[in-house]
Amino acid sequence: MKSKLIPFDLETGKIPESVQDSLKRHISDLAGIFADTDALNAMAAEDDRLVYEFYDMGMPETEGDLAFGTSIVYPGLVGREFFMTKGHFHTILDTAEVYYCLSGHGVMMMEDPEGHVEYQEMRPGEAVYVPGKYAHRSVNISRDQKLVTFYVFRADAGHDYGTIEQKGFRKLVVENGDSYAVVDNPRWGENT
Amino acid sequence: MKSKLIPFDLETGKIPESVQDSLKRHISDLAGIFADTDALNAMAAEDDRLVYEFYDMGMPETEGDLAFGTSIVYPGLVGREFFMTKGHFHTILDTAEVYYCLSGHGVMMMEDPEGHVEYQEMRPGEAVYVPGKYAHRSVNISRDQKLVTFYVFRADAGHDYGTIEQKGFRKLVVENGDSYAVVDNPRWGENT
Repeated sequence: MKSKLIPFDLETGKIPESVQDSLKRHISDLAGIFADTDALNAMAAEDDRLVYEFYDMGMPETEGDLAFGTSIVYPGLVGREFFMTKGHFHTILDTAEVYYCLSGHGVMMMEDPEGHVEYQEMRPGEAVYVPGKYAHRSVNISRDQKLVTFYVFRADAGHDYGTIEQKGFRKLVVENGDSYAVVDNPRWGENT
Repeated sequence: MKSKLIPFDLETGKIPESVQDSLKRHISDLAGIFADTDALNAMAAEDDRLVYEFYDMGMPETEGDLAFGTSIVYPGLVGREFFMTKGHFHTILDTAEVYYCLSGHGVMMMEDPEGHVEYQEMRPGEAVYVPGKYAHRSVNISRDQKLVTFYVFRADAGHDYGTIEQKGFRKLVVENGDSYAVVDNPRWGENT
């Protein structure tokens, strides 16, 4: 394989569209992900905003290669829940991921299959280490800034989105005055 | 394992000293690494400047974990060669590494055991993918700015510095007016 140079923008995390398009997730792509289904349906019908986008560089899925890219979560709320990514386990469960925060203010929410929950606040320059076995999602807790992170994981690790789509995360990150709160997910375990 | 939050500074790449010290490489640590031994010896005797520093987070060396940190190469020259890191192969040869450039202007110099040479210029925001099997070193080609990168690789990949310390890289990155040039290493393969 040849080396690569990927021209991300340091602040926005974007690659020029002439080089590569991002993968985009709008409100309507996220049914079942946010707890407040009525709020989600209303937002999907109104203007179906972009919630997040990310880049997948399509690296070969071998154990010696690394998948990497940026993730951009926009500011917003669905009901009381902040905009966030779907979140996933790795298919090879015990593989870690590193996130480096480039701009914004976020929370990395993590939980393992046994129900241990961890979360870390992220600000620009800070790295979050997501250990193996932990499902993880990026939550934008700013009211007006994008949350931009650079991520790296083993290219053969794979994504298991199904477990989270079925059960959800045990904890939600919700607005709480000017700040945020981590609260129990009242619908956790429901087959949404 | 628990998750981790590492407070790197977005611009300088530094962690507060109260949290963790960096590993530092001065001119006198780099005998045999730069081609111009006379220039190196004179600089070591004069003020033995800091050439680069980096962080090793001490992650468990398993195939599911990731090693990560920042690397900071200072501006300077040894003879006509720009300040740079020693460079290394991974001990598990066919494992990749990702570098994300946070500030400065650099060149990632790469070569594989068969002598294929690749190099990529790096500016802030840009990611360089170093494929498996390629030795790699970061070269600061700015005259006045630090080169700061964030790196990630598989935590069990290991470092083989010995091959480079014995043979050197096939190519040197040298000053060339206001710019740089990549030239043959006249001493490549010598047991320095």
